[in-house]
Order: sequence, then structure tokens, then C-alpha cells
Amino acid sequence: MTSILTVDLDTRSYPIHIGPGLLGDAELLRASTGAGQVVVITNSVVGPLYAETVTRHFGGRDYLQLAVEDGEGAKSFANFERLMGELIAHRIERGATIVALGGGVVGDLAGFVAACYQRGVAFVQIPTTLLAQVDSAVGGKTAINHALGKNMVGAFHQPRAVIADTQTLATLPARELAAGLAEVIKYGLIRDYPFLEWIEANLDGLLARDDEALAFAIRRSCENKAEVVAADERESGQRALLNLGHTFGHAIEAAAGYGAWLHGEAVAAGTCMAARMSARMGLIDAADVARIEQLFTRAGLPIAPPPEIAPATFVELMGRDKKNVGGHIRLVLLEALGRAILTHEYPGDAFEATLAASHEAA
Amino acid sequence: MTSILTVDLDTRSYPIHIGPGLLGDAELLRASTGAGQVVVITNSVVGPLYAETVTRHFGGRDYLQLAVEDGEGAKSFANFERLMGELIAHRIERGATIVALGGGVVGDLAGFVAACYQRGVAFVQIPTTLLAQVDSAVGGKTAINHALGKNMVGAFHQPRAVIADTQTLATLPARELAAGLAEVIKYGLIRDYPFLEWIEANLDGLLARDDEALAFAIRRSCENKAEVVAADERESGQRALLNLGHTFGHAIEAAAGYGAWLHGEAVAAGTCMAARMSARMGLIDAADVARIEQLFTRAGLPIAPPPEIAPATFVELMGRDKKNVGGHIRLVLLEALGRAILTHEYPGDAFEATLAASHEAA
Repeated sequence: MTSILTVDLDTRSYPIHIGPGLLGDAELLRASTGAGQVVVITNSVVGPLYAETVTRHFGGRDYLQLAVEDGEGAKSFANFERLMGELIAHRIERGATIVALGGGVVGDLAGFVAACYQRGVAFVQIPTTLLAQVDSAVGGKTAINHALGKNMVGAFHQPRAVIADTQTLATLPARELAAGLAEVIKYGLIRDYPFLEWIEANLDGLLARDDEALAFAIRRSCENKAEVVAADERESGQRALLNLGHTFGHAIEAAAGYGAWLHGEAVAAGTCMAARMSARMGLIDAADVARIEQLFTRAGLPIAPPPEIAPATFVELMGRDKKNVGGHIRLVLLEALGRAILTHEYPGDAFEATLAASHEAA
Repeated sequence: MTSILTVDLDTRSYPIHIGPGLLGDAELLRASTGAGQVVVITNSVVGPLYAETVTRHFGGRDYLQLAVEDGEGAKSFANFERLMGELIAHRIERGATIVALGGGVVGDLAGFVAACYQRGVAFVQIPTTLLAQVDSAVGGKTAINHALGKNMVGAFHQPRAVIADTQTLATLPARELAAGLAEVIKYGLIRDYPFLEWIEANLDGLLARDDEALAFAIRRSCENKAEVVAADERESGQRALLNLGHTFGHAIEAAAGYGAWLHGEAVAAGTCMAARMSARMGLIDAADVARIEQLFTRAGLPIAPPPEIAPATFVELMGRDKKNVGGHIRLVLLEALGRAILTHEYPGDAFEATLAASHEAA
């Protein structure tokens, strides 16, 4: 039942292990973490659930466990500095491996710590949320947030391995499961129409946490992600398409206050905004938009941002996006279900109308 | 009179320009900074001297100048966060180039900012101290300090170009000139005996800021550095030899409080400690040690740490060094003048005796 995919990056290629019960696989965890010290970074929710299971595989090795608070607020400069202090105080060396045990927040933060501690140490991702297993744990993007913008400070630092134990999804709150589905649906929308149809047909099973359905969705998502990352590691081209819904979404997260909206929720609403704008431009039709909105709604996800976010706030926050060039906000839009484009050449009135009507579904 | 060397790193190869008056070369500065936005990061001493000269080459381009305080204390988490906020607030984009205008502190800090802003933007080094021109601006090491250890948080991020204007040395305080000579002497000691003899013969000219002598010393130092970096970019081997005197030296800097000792001063005293330990082990003889001490003394540099640093303090601080493996402190020692080794296999009593007698010259 375990699948192994590969992210193909020459000398930095690495495996993604997907399957039930992998946290109990002592041999896999030991082999993935080299021979040196091991530092597990987790949070206050995931740690009590799984850290002991992981810890016992490292008996006899120099082992350190660190935890941060739950939620997006943990990706802070303060935690970055504090974790660095813990590593130094515990004499963690360059030969160590840092293990991120948790969701996207823990992975982003621990990955950035691994990228910068002593100018870079090895790193393993053990994602325990659906969102992290299908997206954030794969591809080497690490970051912390600045008060002025999400993920504005970070590094590309590929892990040595990704270990996705699908059993951890059994304890995942329903809201977090839905948030992960937003990124699953994304792959279907931007590059994999057959997968989109499969998600539509199997959404009930996914929401009911059917093992086989979840395993397939994770594997297919990781296959899509691995292909994109292998072709464009540093996002000079097609990797930006993975950001469908994220430019609007990051603005929603920032405006609502980090943590008020889950990342996946903001991506869902942002994706619907991108879809409605694509329809305004005649790229897709109203039936496509309705189909997208229906899928997110069935998944229990929002399809519009909070009404209190003014268009001017969107413009201000989106003006800080990492994809922008020459002061132009670049957007990922849909040309069809299953095909996305990145462009800054769109009619200003379509953009403004989308923002003005942001809280109305199509 | 301008020399151009190359640091050979495949697709990330870059030139080192060395010569008088390069800050006035508009064509060179424009060509080195691409077509996008330019952000100059400098400090409160160097900015007033040179920033205007540099700024006027970028007329018509989106340009931002940021300054930090003078001294090692500027390599702080607080400045790292503040500079990131400035970049976001000014809508600096991924296509921007960050220019470090200053000494090693500015270069390390600005380089780390460039490495992490939006997961990495382009970077140009304009070193204005001897130390930065011969060492820290070349090779891509960037870092900030943690209260618990120097340069413990950073990244390898190669510049697109290094522009060393030797005229900037005319305004350099004598103490900083001497500090730079510590790193020049280092190259002679670890791998270039003919250069060591040349330095001994030309030290008076260097101290008198003879243009030709300085230009030769910078070029020869950069040649040595470029060779080592090209062979071992990420310090898995011989690059560590560039750390002669630095393991002792970083402990001196930390114990004295960052900024109390200049980096080059601490390296000079640390190099003498490494030399005395090498002699205790029979690797070099007392006459070699005396010759090293004499050269540093002539350069106006210390040959011993402050007497108030206890051996236990050295052990504590050196235990956090980035070169350590398996809890062992690794040291760069001299096998001969012009030949260094990195090892953790040394008699404990030679190390302890060196620390116990640290403030006594040989």
C-alpha cells in the first residue's frame, strides 16, 4: 500500500513515501535521517499525538525535540530566532538532520531553520496534514511571515525525504481536511482535468476519509507537484501556476489576520475569485465557474472572501506579491478547466470588477 | 590598473573587479546590477562617504538606499527583520538587485537579506574595507550573529559581481586596515608561502597604503580565495582551511562582546594561538611561531587574546563552532608556513596548555 515517488533534481533528488503507518517504520525514519544528530520540530497539537512514536526510533542518537505554538502565527521572526538559539545551546552540528513533524506551518518554519542554521543542514519532512502531504512538504519552499506579507522571507531548501503517513489524517480536524482538499482540487484545475473529474466523483469518499481515496488523491497530487518542481525548481516559469488562487488568497490571509483563515480556505476563496475573473475575461464560461464553486462548496470550503475586505485592501496587499514584475500584479488565471496561465496582461476593469464583487459568488 | 578575476562556479560564476576609482564607473555598476530595481544597503559611516557616488549611476531606475549602524552589532536579527520590512514596504520585487556597500558586516547582512528576501534575489558586493575586499566579499558566505554564536545563521548566496575600488582604502581607519591585513597574512600561512614572504617584504608599503602594494595584495588574496571557493563552495573540505585562527577568533569576539574586537584582530590573535598550539604538537617550530607573531605585531595586530578570557570560556564558545563533528572541536593548524590542516585529532593537553597560556606570546 506504500507508494514511493521521486522528485527529480539531479544530486538533490529525493523520495516521497506515501502510506499508512509510516511513522512506525523505524528503518525508514532512521535511513532518512542520516547518522548524525536528529532535531524534531513540531507543534503543541501534533507533538503530543506523534512525537513519541517518532522519538523512539532514534534511541541512542543525540536527539532534540522542539515545539512551537499551533497556527500560522508560529511562522514568526521570534520563533526563527528562538529555535536558532535552542540549536546553538544544544550544540547541534552541521551534520545534524532537522525533521519537521506537523503541517504546512511547521514544515515552512522548520525548513527555513534548516536552510539557515550554520548556513544549511539536512532536512526531512513528515507532514501530518492533508495540505502538507499534497503540497507544502514537497518542493523545497520554506518561509516565515513578515507583518507586511506572507512567506516574504524564506529559502529554497529541498528535503532529503518526505514521509507522508496517511494514518495521521484520521486525527485531523474536519476543517483542516477540507483546507487540504483546496490544494488537491488546485492540481485538477491547473493541469490535470482527469484528476478534477475523479475528485468530483470521489469527494464524498475523501470527506469520509476513505483510505484508498485519500491515498490516491495524495499520490496524484504529489505526482503533479513533483513534475512541476523537477521542471522549474526556482519558479522561473510554470511553477508559478501552482499559485492559482494564492495571490488573492494571501491577501485574504493577511487582511483577516494570520491564522483567522486557514491557508487552504483562503486558497479556495481566492481560486473562485480567479475563476470569476477568468470568466469576466471570456477565458472560461459561467458553467465552469459554477462547477468550481460547487466543488469547493461540497468540500465545505468558502468561495468568497470576508465582505469586509475592501478592493483597495486587496490591491495594496496583492501589490506585494512575489510574482509581481515591474509593479504589475501577475495573476494565475484559468483558460479552461485543467489549464492555467500566468499573466499581467488582463483588463484592469475585469480585475476591479472582480474585487468589487468579491463577496458575491457567480 | 584594473584586474578582473573569476570565481568559477559553473552557471553561478562571477567576476571580481579590482582597481582604483571603480565606484565612479557608471557602466560597470549598471551592467553588474541587471535591469530591475536596485537596493543599496550600507552603514552610517560608509553611506555618507560613497553612497552618493554610487547612487548617481542609477538615475531613472527604481532605487532604494537603506543604512544600518556601524559595527558587528549590525548583523542582528532585529536588522534582518527591519530591512525585510523596508523591502516589502517599498515593493521591491524578485527581479531586484541588492548591493552591499561597506565592509564585512554590511556584506554579510545584506547578503543574507538578499538570500532570503522572497527566497532569494540577486546580489552585488561593493566592499570598502581591506578585509571585505580580500576575504568576506568573495565566496558567497552570508550571515547574521546570534547572541549565542557568531555567523550561526546564514546562507551560501553567491554575488553576481564583486567590485573592489581600492581608492576606498584611502579613508579606511588604520585599525581597520590592520584588521584586513590579518586575512591577507592568512592566505600566505595556509597555502601560499611565496605570498607570505612577499607580505613580510612589503608590509611597510601596505601600511603606508602604497597603491601598487595594496592592489597586489588584494589580487593575490582574491586569487587564493577564488581557487578555494571554486573547489569547495560549501565547505565540505579545503574551504575550512580559510578558517585558520577563526575558531579561537570567534570565541574572542563573542567573549569580548561583538564589536569590541574587530574580526581581523580576533583572527590575528587566534592565528597566533593556533600557531603556538601547532608548535606544542611539534608541527612547526618556535622560530616559525616567532616569525608569525612578529609579522602580526609589525602590522599593529594583537597576538594574544584579552587575559580575562578563561580557558573554560574558550572551550564553551569553541564548542559551538560550525566545523565541529561528533562533539569534537575541529581546529585549523599549521604543518608548515604555507600549509594548513583541519583536524580534531590533537592531544588534549596541547589544546589545554594553549588555552592556559593564551595571553602569553611564545
